[in-house]
Amino acid sequence: MSRFHPVYRENVLMPDYRFARQHLAEHFLDAMTAHVLGVARLPDAHVRAHAGDIARLLAALAELREAPPPDYAEDVPDLYFAYNRQLEARLGEGPVSFLRLGLSRNDLDMTVYKLRTREMLLGVIAHLCALRAGVLKQAEAHLATVLIAQTHHQPGQPTTVAHYLAAIDSALGRDLERLFECFGRLNTCPLGAAALAGSSHGLDRHFSAEVLGFDAPVANTYDAVASADWQVEFVTRLQNLSLTLSRFVHDLIHWTTDGRYVLGDGLVQGSSIMPQKRNPVALEHARTRLSRTLGSSQMVLYSSHNIPYTDLNDIGPDIQGALVSLVIQLDGGLTLLAACLENSRFDTAKLEAEARQSDTTATELADELTRRHGLSFQSAHAVAGALVRRVAEGGRVLQDATPEDLASVGGPETSAEDLAAALSPRAFVLRRDGYGGPAPERVAEHLRRSRQMLDENLVRLTELQNRLAAVRRTLSSPAKEPA
Amino acid sequence: MSRFHPVYRENVLMPDYRFARQHLAEHFLDAMTAHVLGVARLPDAHVRAHAGDIARLLAALAELREAPPPDYAEDVPDLYFAYNRQLEARLGEGPVSFLRLGLSRNDLDMTVYKLRTREMLLGVIAHLCALRAGVLKQAEAHLATVLIAQTHHQPGQPTTVAHYLAAIDSALGRDLERLFECFGRLNTCPLGAAALAGSSHGLDRHFSAEVLGFDAPVANTYDAVASADWQVEFVTRLQNLSLTLSRFVHDLIHWTTDGRYVLGDGLVQGSSIMPQKRNPVALEHARTRLSRTLGSSQMVLYSSHNIPYTDLNDIGPDIQGALVSLVIQLDGGLTLLAACLENSRFDTAKLEAEARQSDTTATELADELTRRHGLSFQSAHAVAGALVRRVAEGGRVLQDATPEDLASVGGPETSAEDLAAALSPRAFVLRRDGYGGPAPERVAEHLRRSRQMLDENLVRLTELQNRLAAVRRTLSSPAKEPA
Amino acid sequence: MSRFHPVYRENVLMPDYRFARQHLAEHFLDAMTAHVLGVARLPDAHVRAHAGDIARLLAALAELREAPPPDYAEDVPDLYFAYNRQLEARLGEGPVSFLRLGLSRNDLDMTVYKLRTREMLLGVIAHLCALRAGVLKQAEAHLATVLIAQTHHQPGQPTTVAHYLAAIDSALGRDLERLFECFGRLNTCPLGAAALAGSSHGLDRHFSAEVLGFDAPVANTYDAVASADWQVEFVTRLQNLSLTLSRFVHDLIHWTTDGRYVLGDGLVQGSSIMPQKRNPVALEHARTRLSRTLGSSQMVLYSSHNIPYTDLNDIGPDIQGALVSLVIQLDGGLTLLAACLENSRFDTAKLEAEARQSDTTATELADELTRRHGLSFQSAHAVAGALVRRVAEGGRVLQDATPEDLASVGGPETSAEDLAAALSPRAFVLRRDGYGGPAPERVAEHLRRSRQMLDENLVRLTELQNRLAAVRRTLSSPAKEPA
Amino acid sequence: MSRFHPVYRENVLMPDYRFARQHLAEHFLDAMTAHVLGVARLPDAHVRAHAGDIARLLAALAELREAPPPDYAEDVPDLYFAYNRQLEARLGEGPVSFLRLGLSRNDLDMTVYKLRTREMLLGVIAHLCALRAGVLKQAEAHLATVLIAQTHHQPGQPTTVAHYLAAIDSALGRDLERLFECFGRLNTCPLGAAALAGSSHGLDRHFSAEVLGFDAPVANTYDAVASADWQVEFVTRLQNLSLTLSRFVHDLIHWTTDGRYVLGDGLVQGSSIMPQKRNPVALEHARTRLSRTLGSSQMVLYSSHNIPYTDLNDIGPDIQGALVSLVIQLDGGLTLLAACLENSRFDTAKLEAEARQSDTTATELADELTRRHGLSFQSAHAVAGALVRRVAEGGRVLQDATPEDLASVGGPETSAEDLAAALSPRAFVLRRDGYGGPAPERVAEHLRRSRQMLDENLVRLTELQNRLAAVRRTLSSPAKEPA
Repeated sequence: MSRFHPVYRENVLMPDYRFARQHLAEHFLDAMTAHVLGVARLPDAHVRAHAGDIARLLAALAELREAPPPDYAEDVPDLYFAYNRQLEARLGEGPVSFLRLGLSRNDLDMTVYKLRTREMLLGVIAHLCALRAGVLKQAEAHLATVLIAQTHHQPGQPTTVAHYLAAIDSALGRDLERLFECFGRLNTCPLGAAALAGSSHGLDRHFSAEVLGFDAPVANTYDAVASADWQVEFVTRLQNLSLTLSRFVHDLIHWTTDGRYVLGDGLVQGSSIMPQKRNPVALEHARTRLSRTLGSSQMVLYSSHNIPYTDLNDIGPDIQGALVSLVIQLDGGLTLLAACLENSRFDTAKLEAEARQSDTTATELADELTRRHGLSFQSAHAVAGALVRRVAEGGRVLQDATPEDLASVGGPETSAEDLAAALSPRAFVLRRDGYGGPAPERVAEHLRRSRQMLDENLVRLTELQNRLAAVRRTLSSPAKEPA
Repeated sequence: MSRFHPVYRENVLMPDYRFARQHLAEHFLDAMTAHVLGVARLPDAHVRAHAGDIARLLAALAELREAPPPDYAEDVPDLYFAYNRQLEARLGEGPVSFLRLGLSRNDLDMTVYKLRTREMLLGVIAHLCALRAGVLKQAEAHLATVLIAQTHHQPGQPTTVAHYLAAIDSALGRDLERLFECFGRLNTCPLGAAALAGSSHGLDRHFSAEVLGFDAPVANTYDAVASADWQVEFVTRLQNLSLTLSRFVHDLIHWTTDGRYVLGDGLVQGSSIMPQKRNPVALEHARTRLSRTLGSSQMVLYSSHNIPYTDLNDIGPDIQGALVSLVIQLDGGLTLLAACLENSRFDTAKLEAEARQSDTTATELADELTRRHGLSFQSAHAVAGALVRRVAEGGRVLQDATPEDLASVGGPETSAEDLAAALSPRAFVLRRDGYGGPAPERVAEHLRRSRQMLDENLVRLTELQNRLAAVRRTLSSPAKEPA
Repeated sequence: MSRFHPVYRENVLMPDYRFARQHLAEHFLDAMTAHVLGVARLPDAHVRAHAGDIARLLAALAELREAPPPDYAEDVPDLYFAYNRQLEARLGEGPVSFLRLGLSRNDLDMTVYKLRTREMLLGVIAHLCALRAGVLKQAEAHLATVLIAQTHHQPGQPTTVAHYLAAIDSALGRDLERLFECFGRLNTCPLGAAALAGSSHGLDRHFSAEVLGFDAPVANTYDAVASADWQVEFVTRLQNLSLTLSRFVHDLIHWTTDGRYVLGDGLVQGSSIMPQKRNPVALEHARTRLSRTLGSSQMVLYSSHNIPYTDLNDIGPDIQGALVSLVIQLDGGLTLLAACLENSRFDTAKLEAEARQSDTTATELADELTRRHGLSFQSAHAVAGALVRRVAEGGRVLQDATPEDLASVGGPETSAEDLAAALSPRAFVLRRDGYGGPAPERVAEHLRRSRQMLDENLVRLTELQNRLAAVRRTLSSPAKEPA
Repeated sequence: MSRFHPVYRENVLMPDYRFARQHLAEHFLDAMTAHVLGVARLPDAHVRAHAGDIARLLAALAELREAPPPDYAEDVPDLYFAYNRQLEARLGEGPVSFLRLGLSRNDLDMTVYKLRTREMLLGVIAHLCALRAGVLKQAEAHLATVLIAQTHHQPGQPTTVAHYLAAIDSALGRDLERLFECFGRLNTCPLGAAALAGSSHGLDRHFSAEVLGFDAPVANTYDAVASADWQVEFVTRLQNLSLTLSRFVHDLIHWTTDGRYVLGDGLVQGSSIMPQKRNPVALEHARTRLSRTLGSSQMVLYSSHNIPYTDLNDIGPDIQGALVSLVIQLDGGLTLLAACLENSRFDTAKLEAEARQSDTTATELADELTRRHGLSFQSAHAVAGALVRRVAEGGRVLQDATPEDLASVGGPETSAEDLAAALSPRAFVLRRDGYGGPAPERVAEHLRRSRQMLDENLVRLTELQNRLAAVRRTLSSPAKEPA
């Protein structure tokens, strides 16, 4: 019979147990094994005398991995104690004592949470890399596809689909940098911190850090159990990413509205009542996943606010569910977006027709009036603006303006060819060939660099994934102690 | 074979289906039944001619309640269409046509979400009423228990445990008011709005509103499917409640630290490494549930931000999970807190000892010096402050100050009795018997009013719960059409 | 010379003083005067004996209103003590003692903050009423202007500009309700609570509440100084309003992009480099003010989180600046939006052309096929969908579909007239004349009710404004004691 | 007369102008000067022919720095155009044309915002370094001061003040890392991006980046004007810092409550009514500044949410005020905290007395029973727990437990010396001398490393500050073109 109040059991212990059982069981075994490996190396007579017990304990820990984790029982507070009970049932109290030695749930749990979070972080990185690859692929296909870019929700200037997507890719590249930095800072080991002051047993914290694939032990044992800034850092970086993506999704959805961008059939839905409907729901659901990520992140922030700097449930078990559900949301959003980019097309005919109607080359006309005809930019801007209004009044488009039109609003004499060239969206783009500009060869060059950076990111990701896999393999067969 | 992209299916359709199956199935059947009851009343020849079909459809809808909702299938987009398929399998396409007539998923879903939310809202109200009852019970038991209240984290003035708890109860009473208001505003029916413009079938929206236990139909069909302010209102009211509770929990936890307040054994936990530990974890977990509620609420807010005012997934299916998980958190926090109040005690001996040591009656001394000795309050304040410092320097407590001490810091002559009375925490409380003050009879009076208000709240809650239960009963056996 | 640390002075005392001087000076004088009026009524011999002093004090308080509030001085902690010093300089310590009697900065400040907040709240209500009036005016002008409403970012169904705006108005009406409720709950008086336990002087708290135009005193003195839920309620209601408005602004901006909605010249801006530009900046700036309101509200929420339930700076002086800046943002947003509605037009020619091209009447065609031709709605939906695709393939618009087209996709025989009527956007709207639908007479009826509700709101607002003005007048000339 | 609507002018143009005038004027001149220096290097005949004009323009720009920026005028939209007008008044339209050439407010404004933000970022870094220095200084003074650390709000284990503060310092060190990374990523130059597509004038963007002290130009011109992730990154890093600090402040305030930690007189305030009061207000106000920082950050996040990825006011002028006010809050909090650490003391006598009473050495007793007496840790834990309860029942403290007490609860025989050593808080700390533990020599070693890291941070900060100062000097006297 449980000594815990039923309300406490049902609202806290049981759901937390189930969460740990589903999401953290392997990580608990990893951390417990690493700790016992450390205990096994202690020079104490007491330890030396029980080398066999410790070996049996390690073997039993490995065997626990074969079966599903123990089911919830009312009289056990958490998964760690459930494992303890299983081990004691198998080995008796004596050998299990070497698991308990110098170990607290404080350092154990924090280690487990870090093991889990770094996996989730690599998962996000992998999804983001996949999305970047999709963005780059579409960009590479549209180096010369003119897009009339808006500013302030109005047609602004011609650029290309590739130039726009390369900008998105640049932003996502910064997000990847931020995530890798986060991994580096997160990847330090709390184990050996015990309750907060370490233990008096002389455990080698560098050893257990290495065994678990951490870069180093946390350099202060109080910090090891009390800090949650690594969790906050993780979610704030996802805020950053989500906001950039929310803007990208806004544009893609906006472009579906007028058909410039078309999602594949598997990513749209119809209506139960409106027969003509083809709703870009995959993008809409991606947007909501980003909104939910932004909201969920506040769960982590509020949980770290105005509480003592010490070991607490707020930053421990009680925030892990929020982290997992947040990552599910974000990964869902990233996956949906990547699927959209893979299964969609820009309607080049529509984009071209739009470019033809557009008056957004007025800037280049003003540039030409200044550069070739010596008008001040202020006057050139005024003349170009007047020309825009003049052709609009006549119901014509700017690209059909004639030298006479230009003269009639106070502009200089030009040839029809020069005027047409100044007003051509394609020429507009070609002439903007400075560093970072939309001219196709410039963007192609940029995309090559981006591909290379992405490849480097993927190499780094694979290395980290391999390292974590090796750690898991080693700890699952601890008979062969790691070198 | 599904026409949907696997990524879309796995990240959107499947989890949404499972959520609807678990949380919304009955509400779907309620709303579908109400709609068909409305169709059945249409005067159209077409409808009249198929009265039997419609009766069979209603019977089939009632039968669907007997079995669990259909399992997820890859080629069905959502639970509504899964039900449609079940019905068509049973009845053929013809009768089911009368379900589809003039109904859109837009108005159907929004109706379902409101049915579900109003239930959750009543659940929160019920939990809050239970907590209030616990607060009042502790208050009633401690009318005369002196508590040295802090301001700015320093001892401030004597009051009583009852006075403090009555203040908490007042705040919770305002939260209850806010929740009931929210129910009133929420309880209007979107059904009949179809996609957004209503239908041309002449459905009686007042009828379906009444059948579903709504107070009225939403008065504009566009508003009916586009608005999400009722969801935002719901969660912002939970923000309000959570913040007040976070402060109450802060105090209870703080009082456990020095033992003024003691949780029962079923609500504390020990440590795996620190044998002396007795951690007030039930309160700590309550705090985290409030933090998570505050964070989750941002999911709902972000989801309503900078999107079009129309039917969208953002405010529909994609926010329902956030609402449910938020309510689970909050209900958990309320339940834990209520259990704590029920299973805990204020340590009156400790509180009394603390009051005895306290110098917080200095205010009353200054009051007396002004009232009885004619000092200006400014001077009286200075004299009382000097007396506090004088006895502290002597290592004594203020309540042991003598008339000589008072004279020595420039105070007037007093009798030992008068001085002792002025410095007594109990007298301090008894003398503060104005409206709203801590004097026991005042607080008792206040608590009687609070009990009465709580009783009224409970009556209102029961009425609403009964009404919803009656609606469910009626709709589950639609053979007998509601009057 | 100040006893305060320069860092404390420069970062806290000075900016807080300046804020109070600019925003709270009158409210301090109101509350101080009300308190002294209460002291004057005490039956104590001590008070009776100094009736003249008290009268002089009241006169001096009234005179302080004539001059600007005192400048910041390094040795005075706050505006209250600066006023005390001015009064003592004028009257000597004795009379000022009757201001200090039974008054704490705790109850005084909280009273001042409530006086200020209720003013701001009425200001928001006034701005919102003005916006509603603008919405209704545009709605009344466009009862018959067909608008192709989108759902999921795709053309959905025909409705009218009036129907859409009436929906917005309904939502804003709920926001007004919420704000008035907030006023009612907020308008209780903390005065007389002193530090937290009231005083032993027998002050009549009902009297001071009435003098200050509050509905009642706060019924528990601890609650009076400790609660901040009224501030949280205020800002969460502004969250609610801001989110609805963010969606309205989204649509208006979206409609400017393709010219359906045109802002007046005074509300757009050009570009320094793009001569053709006409950016709808007033709407864009309105959007940002709503985003900032949403963000600012979090300042208030975080400030109430995980702190003790007692008097603290967090919920007192330190949150007032956030409240003021939040209200400035929101009022700015409301004002900009109202100006936009006043100075803009819907381009009816463009809307009509768009409606002509639209295939969004497919729903009504399906309705007709069911109602008049006996098809099941499922089949009717399929036929209508097939017709949409067929005419699209032929490069035609749905409204030009012929009976032959319909037959060719498996539809029944119809007359050209009936088919045209079923496909007409105008007829679509006219036929949707049920409760809440877009048919012009329905919307006209709804708008009449909305006007009436707005008029009632305005009456209520004026009454409250008049009441506050009367309070201020009375307290500014306290010679004539209020009845 | 202004062409702008008065509502737009008063709510947008005027406050934005005043903000720019106060906070951005120098940065505008820096960026404008850098642009003109770039224009001056163009090989165009047109430019070559007007070398004198350009030189005059540069001289005039330098002179503008001598006077205050122009006052707001109703007919000028912003500070950039106000400067243009001043320059035209001085030089005529011709020379000023070379400022307008290939420059848009889009790239100009974004450059200005980055110039300003990087300054604010360095300011935060400087304040944080100062705080770290204060933390380290207190830590170095308390290497051996035993502190009974709490976990879960209950006494946990002995550690030292230095160990605790070193943990805080570690966390702040990570915050510094994050801020420096942010600087690195932020410090790229948008100039030359023009509206979004760059210009056709062949401006050398690497040159202008270098002149302005940026590390490189932004590598995509669309990205240059559209991205706001650098602003989001800045504020999310401040979220991270604020949350860690909120926990540190929590502890410091908590320690003032029972007098373990005492603030200097200049940082506390008394009460207007409670003569005994000494409130730790500087810490309280620090807390609120952190809460406000957390809230303000949401203004920036909401402003970047669900908007197009392009140049917009949301991420431009409309968010700059939020950034500045957020930094004012945070810098205020950092400064207050640093002042507190400088002007406060830990009461070592009180800490020692508390340690003497504490039963938190029970862990070490269990460790000893395992290590020296061969008990399993589980049994040792049970024995130590029983001993804690036994002495408590006898009204004694654990440190007075005798070998007989231990035996009576089933423990092994020990000497009184060994038992006393196992129960001594000081010995507890000394024995925990593993990596990261509280043993004084360990912490001393850690603090030496921390000092060194802080010194490196300060060197890096100074280098960056010097670099920015050099940029400003060069641009203020552009006659001597930078190498």
